[in-house]
Amino acid sequence: MEGYGLFLVLLVSALLLGFLSVLFALVWVFHYREGLSWDGGSAEFNWHPVLIITGFIFIQGIAIIVYRLPWTWKCSKLLIKFIHAGLNTIAMILAIVSLVAVFDFHNAKNIPNMYSLHSWIGLTAVIFYTLQLVLGFAVFLLPFAPVSLRASLMPIHIYSGLLIFATVIATALMGFTEKLIFALKTPAPAYNTSPPEAIFVNTLGLLIVIFGALILWMATRPHWKRPPEENSKIQQPNGGTPEGTEEESTMTDCSNTDKSDVEFNSEAAARKRNLKLDEIFEIRRNVQDFSWWSRHCSSERTISTHRLAYYCIGSCWIPPALARPIRKGV
Amino acid sequence: MEGYGLFLVLLVSALLLGFLSVLFALVWVFHYREGLSWDGGSAEFNWHPVLIITGFIFIQGIAIIVYRLPWTWKCSKLLIKFIHAGLNTIAMILAIVSLVAVFDFHNAKNIPNMYSLHSWIGLTAVIFYTLQLVLGFAVFLLPFAPVSLRASLMPIHIYSGLLIFATVIATALMGFTEKLIFALKTPAPAYNTSPPEAIFVNTLGLLIVIFGALILWMATRPHWKRPPEENSKIQQPNGGTPEGTEEESTMTDCSNTDKSDVEFNSEAAARKRNLKLDEIFEIRRNVQDFSWWSRHCSSERTISTHRLAYYCIGSCWIPPALARPIRKGV
Repeated sequence: MEGYGLFLVLLVSALLLGFLSVLFALVWVFHYREGLSWDGGSAEFNWHPVLIITGFIFIQGIAIIVYRLPWTWKCSKLLIKFIHAGLNTIAMILAIVSLVAVFDFHNAKNIPNMYSLHSWIGLTAVIFYTLQLVLGFAVFLLPFAPVSLRASLMPIHIYSGLLIFATVIATALMGFTEKLIFALKTPAPAYNTSPPEAIFVNTLGLLIVIFGALILWMATRPHWKRPPEENSKIQQPNGGTPEGTEEESTMTDCSNTDKSDVEFNSEAAARKRNLKLDEIFEIRRNVQDFSWWSRHCSSERTISTHRLAYYCIGSCWIPPALARPIRKGV
Repeated sequence: MEGYGLFLVLLVSALLLGFLSVLFALVWVFHYREGLSWDGGSAEFNWHPVLIITGFIFIQGIAIIVYRLPWTWKCSKLLIKFIHAGLNTIAMILAIVSLVAVFDFHNAKNIPNMYSLHSWIGLTAVIFYTLQLVLGFAVFLLPFAPVSLRASLMPIHIYSGLLIFATVIATALMGFTEKLIFALKTPAPAYNTSPPEAIFVNTLGLLIVIFGALILWMATRPHWKRPPEENSKIQQPNGGTPEGTEEESTMTDCSNTDKSDVEFNSEAAARKRNLKLDEIFEIRRNVQDFSWWSRHCSSERTISTHRLAYYCIGSCWIPPALARPIRKGV
């Protein structure tokens, strides 16, 4: 991995900042506020910042860069997809529980819900995050979506993921502002007198901004991208050598595992490929997706029948060489 | 331009949202607040949101995507660089004036400065924005920085520009939250009763978030990038054809105009190039940068002397063909 040292430094810094943010949130609610409980009071509200910072910021941040951890590159991409989806699911659950806590608190105290800009943007972020998770699962994890759909949705999936992450951080900053203004007033020292709690939570806000900046930097460096999988370097269907050009090799590898590589690294080049090649790749992906699912869901006899059907789909014939990785369990 | 229709739709939407945001800011301060003046009162504070939204959000957003407007692709890249730097300078000046307004207001009313998270992050953003502008001018506009420095700083320049833009939007959202909580309290209807002003400013917050999302989308699509300049497609110094591969062509064209193209589109590929080629490109860039400056600053005799010196620098000889674009005023 190029720039491995710098990546490690940034990763460790991000992890430290993430842990520190969660720790700050806990110190805030236990030392400066009423702690945590589920009784409709302020201590129930406190679950809101703790769970948002832990799940919706820290865990979501890790989920974003999980593909880029170099020691996971030996694992199958499917496994990393599951980890990415799993971490995001945990983050979503924590975010929803944190919303329940704040609605519960508001209702118990007769405080109106959904009046603030924080609540408008925050709820929108949770809704889009859930949509992103459901669509991501349906399109990129389940084997039914055609490669053209995956290819066209991948840039949107990546962009909206990063945008939601940034929006969640902005929403958290608004939340800190609201809470400090509401909580720090007579008889407590006012926010504008900069009491220790104000300095502490402002610092927490800065930590989260720097954490987000590091995650976004790591997630958008092209040279820290997960490389194509070695075991998917199979024979070219159109008579090319197994190596081919770098671009072709990337195209081949990624079409076996995930269309994201193609879109992310060489979007423009990919569009210039002819339909014929795309069809071959799509059928090969279907064979492989089917293979993965069939290993989990079907009998060997069913696999053979379906594999034969897939070989003959479309206007081109898939050479038997393509079947090898399937037999090897790629 | 690929996807020209979609680009136009997004651009028009972004412009409309930007104008609408400025209009909303004006309606807010004139219809709901005390208008604008410079008297140390609330009307002086009101310059703060108006100038931040106009300069630091709308104009900065346009400055970010100015390279991507297809009808500017016939203009020289240097001209667009000046427009990019000029718009950012205007935005910086407006942001600084808006800070003066709020400090003035605070001092007149004996309100402490710099206590809120909004002020901490906002001032940090203005400082980094100024640094970004000064460094950008020194490295990318002045002709003195070596190409290796430009190449290594360009990804940081792009990333920090987008990050500052997003941070400014987040800071504005915190500012709306603060102002609505402080302004909407007894005897006025409180923020949590959702009076028309609260709904209006919350909507302004949403407009700004969508504006930012559109700008960031347009600024990060690789296929909407300004293409290499036609008139810089000159003969390959290493004996290649004028066309070369697509990747080589990009490398050649961009090194004549701006290293950003190389870094943005094919960072990984660029790193694989050998030093020899880099040296040639660096010398060619120096020739061209020098050419631009010399047309403005030196006599023809001095140009000739220096041009000869540049041709002979390093371990390789630059063919006379390279001089042609200089004579043509490229």
